[in-house]
Amino acid sequence: MKLKCIISYDGTQFAGYQVQPNKRTVQGELNRALKKLHKGTDINVSASGRTDARVHAVGQVIHFESPLNIPADKWEVALNSLLPADVALTHAEIVPDAFHARYDARGKEYRYSILRSANRDPLKRNYVYHYPYPLDTTRMKTAIPYLTGTHDFTSFCSARSEVEDKVRELKSIELIEDGDMLTIRFIGTGFLYNMVRILTGTLLAIGAGDLSPDAIPGILEKKDRIFAGKTAPAQGLYLWEVFYE
Amino acid sequence: MKLKCIISYDGTQFAGYQVQPNKRTVQGELNRALKKLHKGTDINVSASGRTDARVHAVGQVIHFESPLNIPADKWEVALNSLLPADVALTHAEIVPDAFHARYDARGKEYRYSILRSANRDPLKRNYVYHYPYPLDTTRMKTAIPYLTGTHDFTSFCSARSEVEDKVRELKSIELIEDGDMLTIRFIGTGFLYNMVRILTGTLLAIGAGDLSPDAIPGILEKKDRIFAGKTAPAQGLYLWEVFYE
Repeated sequence: MKLKCIISYDGTQFAGYQVQPNKRTVQGELNRALKKLHKGTDINVSASGRTDARVHAVGQVIHFESPLNIPADKWEVALNSLLPADVALTHAEIVPDAFHARYDARGKEYRYSILRSANRDPLKRNYVYHYPYPLDTTRMKTAIPYLTGTHDFTSFCSARSEVEDKVRELKSIELIEDGDMLTIRFIGTGFLYNMVRILTGTLLAIGAGDLSPDAIPGILEKKDRIFAGKTAPAQGLYLWEVFYE
Repeated sequence: MKLKCIISYDGTQFAGYQVQPNKRTVQGELNRALKKLHKGTDINVSASGRTDARVHAVGQVIHFESPLNIPADKWEVALNSLLPADVALTHAEIVPDAFHARYDARGKEYRYSILRSANRDPLKRNYVYHYPYPLDTTRMKTAIPYLTGTHDFTSFCSARSEVEDKVRELKSIELIEDGDMLTIRFIGTGFLYNMVRILTGTLLAIGAGDLSPDAIPGILEKKDRIFAGKTAPAQGLYLWEVFYE
């Protein structure tokens, strides 16, 4: 049977989602746990997409096939007991054989957390980007309509990306202010490599007054990474949810 | 001049507050940073009290004397640049020479964080106690009046404690429920070794139905640690604030 699972992980001590030789990865831990559960048989795991080192996930989605006759509601307990403390299964369901975590994904939500306090917070250091400088969030909001919609996001994609088609639809960007926390929610049909972190860095440059909101159309048009803002640090980024039909 | 500073730390990677040979401690990091700032001169640091391994602090208070002529508002930047990411100064002020972080403390607030979700949360694993079993918080609240007030808290103190007088005044206990998070606030004039963790373990035993709220007076009277509940794990505990006159 085929299983679709939602997993959550703390990216702090991972070299990212995808397996790499001699590095601790989320996929590596999933492979190890599944192999143990299947008495030494390797089980292939597919995710909705990769996440980078130190990036977190609240709602990453994976799928795999298993010959084991475990009811859907027992998979959480079975796998969680074999996974390390920084990865957990939060949901499991049996899906049709045709389901694919990556190809069937219709959209994703990412969140980026910014801590605006004057002092850094030791308890949040791995979970937010500490940004102690003034920010004009009203100005940041003015930039949103220029970014949402269907665009070629080449300027907002790592130059290391090997994807050909860089047109994506960014459905919404929302700024949530709560005390000294600023969370930016991004919902879109798909995201390019480093796209959320570059969008965040660009919005911060606008909020800091270093960039004008109406510079966005020109940056998009240039199709060159160097014109957008800095790539915001990994530890503020969360893969929040993956949407399916 | 004498400085009073508020510090915050993430206890996860510390063997506790107090210096121990060959172990990473908060005091050890403060000593190292102060020595560097004072060009190799050792500076004695005193705290309001110790915290155990993995216990966090939002508002620990320390004092030290320094011959350096740094204005109070520059100490934060000066020391934070020398401290590791999991310790930070959040406030500094010049105080009279007679001030003592421990002897002048009039009370403290501790908070204990419990995550009641069915699944463990990898992102909170070092910051909460995951308690997935049913809890009757109304029943827990019923126990509060038996615990607050002035009592001999021997039953709620680690048997390893070497303190003679175990009479303390527990001013208030408050349960704050927010979704699947349950926070217990403890305010008192002083706390014994492991007292908050044993009080929490006892309140959880009451909430779980394993202990009756009206068993508390008898437990206090026994003056024996074995009659109270389990010691709740360290990672859910926060030294929240220290009160002075």
